[in-house]
Amino acid sequence: MRIIVDAFGGDNAPLEILKGAVAAKNEFGCDILLCGDEEQIRACAKENDIDLSGMDIETADGFIPVEEDPRSLLKQYKNSSLGVACRALAEGRGDALVSAGSTGALVVGAIFIVKRIKGVRRPAIATIMPGDKGNFMLIDGGANIEVTPEALDTFALMGSVYMDKVMGVNDPKVGLLNIGVEPNKGTELQKHAYPLLEQNEHIHFIGNAEARDVPACVADVVVCDGFTGNVFLKTYEGVALTLFSNVKEVMMKSTMTKVAALILKGGLKELKTKFDANAVGGAPILGVQKPVIKAHGSSKEVAFKNAIRQAISFTESGAIATIEENLPKKERADESAETEAEE
Amino acid sequence: MRIIVDAFGGDNAPLEILKGAVAAKNEFGCDILLCGDEEQIRACAKENDIDLSGMDIETADGFIPVEEDPRSLLKQYKNSSLGVACRALAEGRGDALVSAGSTGALVVGAIFIVKRIKGVRRPAIATIMPGDKGNFMLIDGGANIEVTPEALDTFALMGSVYMDKVMGVNDPKVGLLNIGVEPNKGTELQKHAYPLLEQNEHIHFIGNAEARDVPACVADVVVCDGFTGNVFLKTYEGVALTLFSNVKEVMMKSTMTKVAALILKGGLKELKTKFDANAVGGAPILGVQKPVIKAHGSSKEVAFKNAIRQAISFTESGAIATIEENLPKKERADESAETEAEE
Repeated sequence: MRIIVDAFGGDNAPLEILKGAVAAKNEFGCDILLCGDEEQIRACAKENDIDLSGMDIETADGFIPVEEDPRSLLKQYKNSSLGVACRALAEGRGDALVSAGSTGALVVGAIFIVKRIKGVRRPAIATIMPGDKGNFMLIDGGANIEVTPEALDTFALMGSVYMDKVMGVNDPKVGLLNIGVEPNKGTELQKHAYPLLEQNEHIHFIGNAEARDVPACVADVVVCDGFTGNVFLKTYEGVALTLFSNVKEVMMKSTMTKVAALILKGGLKELKTKFDANAVGGAPILGVQKPVIKAHGSSKEVAFKNAIRQAISFTESGAIATIEENLPKKERADESAETEAEE
Repeated sequence: MRIIVDAFGGDNAPLEILKGAVAAKNEFGCDILLCGDEEQIRACAKENDIDLSGMDIETADGFIPVEEDPRSLLKQYKNSSLGVACRALAEGRGDALVSAGSTGALVVGAIFIVKRIKGVRRPAIATIMPGDKGNFMLIDGGANIEVTPEALDTFALMGSVYMDKVMGVNDPKVGLLNIGVEPNKGTELQKHAYPLLEQNEHIHFIGNAEARDVPACVADVVVCDGFTGNVFLKTYEGVALTLFSNVKEVMMKSTMTKVAALILKGGLKELKTKFDANAVGGAPILGVQKPVIKAHGSSKEVAFKNAIRQAISFTESGAIATIEENLPKKERADESAETEAEE
């Protein structure tokens, strides 16, 4: 098993990425191919006493900044660490790719360099989120701003397979993110997606999932367009941040409350970990031919190591073959023409 | 000042509604017109020792259930408590209307019985939400599932005027709910709404507001379509519920943590109140000719009383006249044809 690592993606690259990669190599016994400016990688490793022995490096020119147009990965940034990493995966110099860099650019690289699964028009970011009773998946987390009902059907299938085969959730429940439980709720998108999901024999569809019930894990796979998904996950993050900082304030009010805080420290720390998206690892980009994992941009050593663990499980699971087998027929038929038009 | 009350709207009607109305009458000195089955109102008041003296009742037949098609308010439910209340407002037998009943039906009543402000194509629910540094408004909270960029511009104006004149927020900051801060982010809707908001001289537009930053009060008025708004506010509610219940679990773990919980009880209770949407009162339906307030469906006495207080402030503020004066011209011009087509 060889994992390709974008050594210059993320807020804490390359140092924390290198540390995470080394930790993963030692803990999981995988091989690592680092992509990035070799000189800088060696200098950073030397400066921080990181042992890169046994790791390969594929050199690259700089990295693609998050604020850049993602499409530029195919042009002026094609030799960036991410561009090189995507090509290494496409050309078989590793089994899976992990990057903490620009989400948009990684999606572009996944689609146009790693390439889509035949029959998938729109790959999606499948964000694994912490909920009350375990993790759930939000698909799409932001790769596709505007989608068709058929795309949501494909997201549902891909998400189901991943939760089953990689996350170990047996017969995962699929919910359509909506503003009410009745089948006629929502925009035209949800109204038309509902019957498709209902008829999809490869998923366990439970109907519409209201946003209020999602944190309590009403569904294992929550299906939506990327705009709604992105709003959902950022609201989730924002509310959690605001509430935790308010609880902290309550605890810092007086000597007495500080004592109480000390008693609760362990439990609250566990709670923060439970609701910390970083602990999960990374978000797979589903619908492409090989495993691609997006690690959180703020990943440090442990988060990045966890993302590599996800990449290994993803690769070993055979999820991509199962997705290919069970793809909704409709999407398959429609696909070829549009794909060409887009490219 | 005379407030029209839908006595049979909400989960706790009529008892808590009557209690809230009496409390408002005593505290704010307003007159109250109760709409609902007179016999049942009198029986409920008698049974619970509620003094209705000085209040008028306009009798009605039953109420419209929340699961009914909202449009049925205009047909088989036209004599329901809400239908009667809407007509009482339209015909001037009161200054403002408060209901804790079906949101959809109240919106229908507001649009088709109370009637729109000339030039507003789409009235919106302006949900007032608790944030870290005070309240902010989310507009639209769910009245319009699919909207135009021009409608968002109108929402921004209406929300601004309300926050300024009714909620006392000077020069309210308006943000467009989006998945990134750059002007080209989002769907076609946000991309086209951005320049309209930017050019609107009656609002203080600060650009896109990311969902992550909204709970921390990055904007006073957060503008979006009703689908996204509804997902946002239900996610907000769901995450807060889940986190608070988890904090509670941490506190109930052992005798020691229970002692700590006792010390923190006051502070945490304040925090729960701070983030309790009920404390604010109600959500105005903006864009109609007279003040209409939607109280939370689960309103009890205090929440309903607070909603009546909002109705009074709304009426006294002159906000509706200001909205009429400052309406975006474009929406005005487009409007007349479409309104007719719809009705």
